[in-house]
Amino acid sequence: MNDHVERRERPVLTNPAAERVKQVRGLSRRSVRRRTRRILVEGPQGVREAVHFAPEKIRDLYVTAEAAHRHADVVEPARQAGVVVHEATEEVLAAMCDADTPQGAAAVVDWSPASLEEVLASEPRLLVLLAHVRDPGNLGTVIRGADAAGADAVLVSDGSVDVMSPKVVRSTAGSIFHLPVVTGLPVGQALAALGAAGVRRLAADGAGRHTIDDTDLTGSHVWVMGNEAWGLGASTREACDEVVRVPIHGHAESLNLAMATTICLYASARSQRND
Amino acid sequence: MNDHVERRERPVLTNPAAERVKQVRGLSRRSVRRRTRRILVEGPQGVREAVHFAPEKIRDLYVTAEAAHRHADVVEPARQAGVVVHEATEEVLAAMCDADTPQGAAAVVDWSPASLEEVLASEPRLLVLLAHVRDPGNLGTVIRGADAAGADAVLVSDGSVDVMSPKVVRSTAGSIFHLPVVTGLPVGQALAALGAAGVRRLAADGAGRHTIDDTDLTGSHVWVMGNEAWGLGASTREACDEVVRVPIHGHAESLNLAMATTICLYASARSQRND
Repeated sequence: MNDHVERRERPVLTNPAAERVKQVRGLSRRSVRRRTRRILVEGPQGVREAVHFAPEKIRDLYVTAEAAHRHADVVEPARQAGVVVHEATEEVLAAMCDADTPQGAAAVVDWSPASLEEVLASEPRLLVLLAHVRDPGNLGTVIRGADAAGADAVLVSDGSVDVMSPKVVRSTAGSIFHLPVVTGLPVGQALAALGAAGVRRLAADGAGRHTIDDTDLTGSHVWVMGNEAWGLGASTREACDEVVRVPIHGHAESLNLAMATTICLYASARSQRND
Repeated sequence: MNDHVERRERPVLTNPAAERVKQVRGLSRRSVRRRTRRILVEGPQGVREAVHFAPEKIRDLYVTAEAAHRHADVVEPARQAGVVVHEATEEVLAAMCDADTPQGAAAVVDWSPASLEEVLASEPRLLVLLAHVRDPGNLGTVIRGADAAGADAVLVSDGSVDVMSPKVVRSTAGSIFHLPVVTGLPVGQALAALGAAGVRRLAADGAGRHTIDDTDLTGSHVWVMGNEAWGLGASTREACDEVVRVPIHGHAESLNLAMATTICLYASARSQRND
């Protein structure tokens, strides 16, 4: 009942130059995200996952009339969870968003990284540490793949692309709300902490003598993945317990980072679940 | 010796409005690719693979002075193989290319799809059939993943994105020169021909009762992958021998197409090679 009253009272947002629109658009800037600790979630799939997994963290949800109708399975649960839902025009959505096609839905959501201590305290079985990942699409796709493979968390080193950027968030397809993500880790310190916690450190690198198919992947371990262009540094490889490669059976020089990571994580998931 | 004479005589291309530049740029258009049966290969990695795997098909290679120096491992073998190498300015390269950053190297290469008959005559063990793939990055990444997994060919249905488009070619990272690609296949006819050739048809679909981990993947088979948005149609699934799913262990709704395909192909490669 209250819902209905509220819905009628809130005017449709029609002015792309309004202060509110500029504030949302500001989340495309790293400095604003840092200060506000908020992220912009674009598109119905990401918004749906925010509504299901972190409704209390949604500050505002913006939808066009058409999207509100087409994605009632997102908007109605949001209203029931007490989320403030604004109807807005396509132009307003476009002015707010970084994506070319936000598909009529966007949300501003509080988001904080997890800490490595918290993750280690949860006795993780399967982790991935990305060292100096630079491409937002890669990082987002790795988070999505890690989620699908059932990893316990994603660890991101310092010097990496910002997890909170709209492009990363989009590429996660909502998985950013499904598992903890730790950011800003110095690689050496992270590897030391993982080792001390009894997590086996597997460097994924073409130089590995063993492949994912002939490595024991049953126990607790972390996949350590290098930068897209230059891979893992020698000191990082040496700080790991083993160097393992994804076999290349054809003539391809390599797989891309997201692909290689997901293949490693799925190999682990299969071994651990058959264990 | 002849090489050196030729190199001195050919002038550096400096005019971004020249007819030759327009002709190369024309390869961004499907109609021009269809008529000329040529593709534009952008960036040193793709060019390197063309030089190594299909030097006789390269019509022209364009490089900046800087790229010629930095990628001598590409340019010198090209010259030795008789490829016509043109030095061009950055501006000319930019005017020729579809990519924002062609990284100083591009080639025009004759390219033709393989036929399904040829592929079947080679007694393939591992294939993938993409039904109505629409995103160029997905198609290119699948070709790269199929190459890495050692698949024998990639089959692409009618109604799919054009394999010859610059964005697809870029996303293959050179793998388009490593394995046969068949295009324009009506899905039903292709499945019938594959079945008649004794290739087991596995529909990859979330509706599968069995997963890639509990399906026998040792014999000759083809993975049949659906469209990014709507997956496989019921009639396609029913025309396959089995429906198999990639397990989702976390909360992710799905994996993206390229990811799911590569995971399926790697599961097959592992089973077939341990067989």
